[in-house]
Amino acid sequence: MERVVKEWMHANQQQAIDFLKEIVQEPSIQGKEIGAQEKVANKLKQMGLEVDIWEPGGEEFIKHPYFCATRTDFAGSPNVVGVWRGTGGGKSLILNGHIDVVPAGDETQWLHDPFSGKVTGGKMYGRGVTDMKGGNASLLFAIECLKKLGIKLKGDVIFQSVIEEESGGGGTLSAILRGYRADAAIIPEPTDMKIFPKQQGSMWFKIRVKGRSAHGGTRYEGISAIEKSMIVIEEIQRLEKKRNERVTDPLYQNIPIPIPINIGVIQGGDWPSSVPDQVELQGRMGVAPEENMEQAKKEMEEALNHLSHLDDWFSEPPQLEWFGAQWVPGTIDPEHLLMNQIISKFRQVMKCEPMVEASPWGTDGGLLNKVGEVPSIVFGPGITGMAHYPNEYIELDKMIACAEVIALTILEWCEVSG
Amino acid sequence: MERVVKEWMHANQQQAIDFLKEIVQEPSIQGKEIGAQEKVANKLKQMGLEVDIWEPGGEEFIKHPYFCATRTDFAGSPNVVGVWRGTGGGKSLILNGHIDVVPAGDETQWLHDPFSGKVTGGKMYGRGVTDMKGGNASLLFAIECLKKLGIKLKGDVIFQSVIEEESGGGGTLSAILRGYRADAAIIPEPTDMKIFPKQQGSMWFKIRVKGRSAHGGTRYEGISAIEKSMIVIEEIQRLEKKRNERVTDPLYQNIPIPIPINIGVIQGGDWPSSVPDQVELQGRMGVAPEENMEQAKKEMEEALNHLSHLDDWFSEPPQLEWFGAQWVPGTIDPEHLLMNQIISKFRQVMKCEPMVEASPWGTDGGLLNKVGEVPSIVFGPGITGMAHYPNEYIELDKMIACAEVIALTILEWCEVSG
Repeated sequence: MERVVKEWMHANQQQAIDFLKEIVQEPSIQGKEIGAQEKVANKLKQMGLEVDIWEPGGEEFIKHPYFCATRTDFAGSPNVVGVWRGTGGGKSLILNGHIDVVPAGDETQWLHDPFSGKVTGGKMYGRGVTDMKGGNASLLFAIECLKKLGIKLKGDVIFQSVIEEESGGGGTLSAILRGYRADAAIIPEPTDMKIFPKQQGSMWFKIRVKGRSAHGGTRYEGISAIEKSMIVIEEIQRLEKKRNERVTDPLYQNIPIPIPINIGVIQGGDWPSSVPDQVELQGRMGVAPEENMEQAKKEMEEALNHLSHLDDWFSEPPQLEWFGAQWVPGTIDPEHLLMNQIISKFRQVMKCEPMVEASPWGTDGGLLNKVGEVPSIVFGPGITGMAHYPNEYIELDKMIACAEVIALTILEWCEVSG
Repeated sequence: MERVVKEWMHANQQQAIDFLKEIVQEPSIQGKEIGAQEKVANKLKQMGLEVDIWEPGGEEFIKHPYFCATRTDFAGSPNVVGVWRGTGGGKSLILNGHIDVVPAGDETQWLHDPFSGKVTGGKMYGRGVTDMKGGNASLLFAIECLKKLGIKLKGDVIFQSVIEEESGGGGTLSAILRGYRADAAIIPEPTDMKIFPKQQGSMWFKIRVKGRSAHGGTRYEGISAIEKSMIVIEEIQRLEKKRNERVTDPLYQNIPIPIPINIGVIQGGDWPSSVPDQVELQGRMGVAPEENMEQAKKEMEEALNHLSHLDDWFSEPPQLEWFGAQWVPGTIDPEHLLMNQIISKFRQVMKCEPMVEASPWGTDGGLLNKVGEVPSIVFGPGITGMAHYPNEYIELDKMIACAEVIALTILEWCEVSG
């Protein structure tokens, strides 16, 4: 069977590449997902899957504690799910990939049109090709291969093309609330073909540090919010150190800072010769795979409250706001059966040992895990370091190899029927 | 004579208030000075002074080492000078005031239209009323009083209504280059009626601190420009300390930081979950009255070069740029005859001792001093703390009292003829 899969894939790989190009040419940034989703839905129908297309919405969704988005109206932004119903008695598998891509950014930094899907030297270039349309193409190619080979499975395969992963996971949340569950899931985010049984979660924060304005020539009459923000940053560095000293998971043994707190943006003051009366910090707090997000938020709050012991100015602590996106952490038991299977199939296909690590960023696996109770593995062909960058690309042979690993894993997990 | 001046002023003060209102109602922000300047020129003509109106320009001006402006074309932005020629044998006096005002800013924070010149409770409100049209009105009222009383002076009185003080002093520089010099000068900037024989200069700088971008989840792969900018700020704080330890002038004995280095603006990074690869700091460096500006710039450069000893990242030092406005420091000997005269007249008029200090900010007195070699005193009726603020106001009785001090000082300095 392994040989048959390999041969079919080898003979038909141009189809997968052509399909990837088609969906890369649809610039499915937030709000513009429909063109790409239509192509995915057609593909699923051609393969004979039951196709479900819907726009996320409704009270339960918008008010859900894990709902996190920059919008509440998803008209024109459908999710697409294709179900390959099994004959019964087998384990089910969700194959989840997001269709949304981040904007192309400064197009002058791109060598090719970011939505051209230009192929050269065994690589395809384009926004989203690595994060994560290439992974989605691997999933669809794996399903197509098994379908074309006339295989019947005992367990269901549920393919999900979701929106909103880049903005907080609303697409996957909506799919869970619509009732899609399974015994496990695979998400082919760009892992450089590493296997991630655990995923770091993350949350974005804003901290507003106040000062008191004065003329720069009499700056001693004011309080510099820039100087005060340095004290806040040092406190956050101490918090990061404390949180990371607690991380003993061997999956993190080679990671210098398993759950970093990154301060990404600083902005304060509006005139060179005025004492700045406000600084805003924006950052990202990593959340450990087994950690509770609310608990992590509380630790940040406590750190800011602690500032009053260091400096009377902070008797009213800086204002903390959790804003924008969040990614729920996720974890699957490293000894889980699906882990054993995917590792063994990886060895067969790649002829080497996989790297098994904890991801330094969140995926929709966190929601599948926490809200859907679906243990999830992240494993995909994209290049981690190219995600969100100009000249994003994917190595096409990795995309095919990933499809092969996944096809073989499906066969073992869902089991061939009759 | 003092009694006659006081009585005339008392009888005619409404004229000064009306004239102030007229020029406050002309919103003479940069580039829109002409309406106010026409009113000033007419006033000077009515009083019988020789009036000179010109738009600054020309090679010598634009290329002058002290030329500092946000524009090089001053069409429609004239300077106005009125000369009251003396009979000869007396000392001449420049009375210098700038006509340009800073923008009104957020008008919702104003209780009255910022260009209404609304009078209530003995105060006039409006943009520029304190900085420094009220001072200019004091000067004109002093001249008008002496003219109306039929006084003839030995020395020349040169009244200057200049543009561009708020943007680097181009108006006063142009007046100096046009040949206007005198034995001394008085500039009625808003000093709260304090007498400033010395003025701090200042210069604006930008410092660009580099980092190296990375995903926030693997922030250890990047270099945070925010963390590096904290090292830069600490180095600047050490430089400020070192520079201020050198200041021994008794005029600064009550000033906690005589020549502050203010960091007014910080801006860096553009995404909460990316390691920021650039931070820009903008600030204002104070320059001591007797200090050379180039020397001060060099000290800042040396401090940034020194960073490489603290952190290898700075083997290429942060980029330093001097930008925007600069104000040349100025000084007059505290024992100068004009100082003695103005102090003695202040005592007579105000019935108290004046506060004699060094100003924490620069004025056009620096240019008069350094380029024109005209020793200058800053003394005016405006409220220091209201300059550039919403609801800027002036106390009208202070404006009249200032005019009286200046009129009596003119009589003594220029000497009555015959």
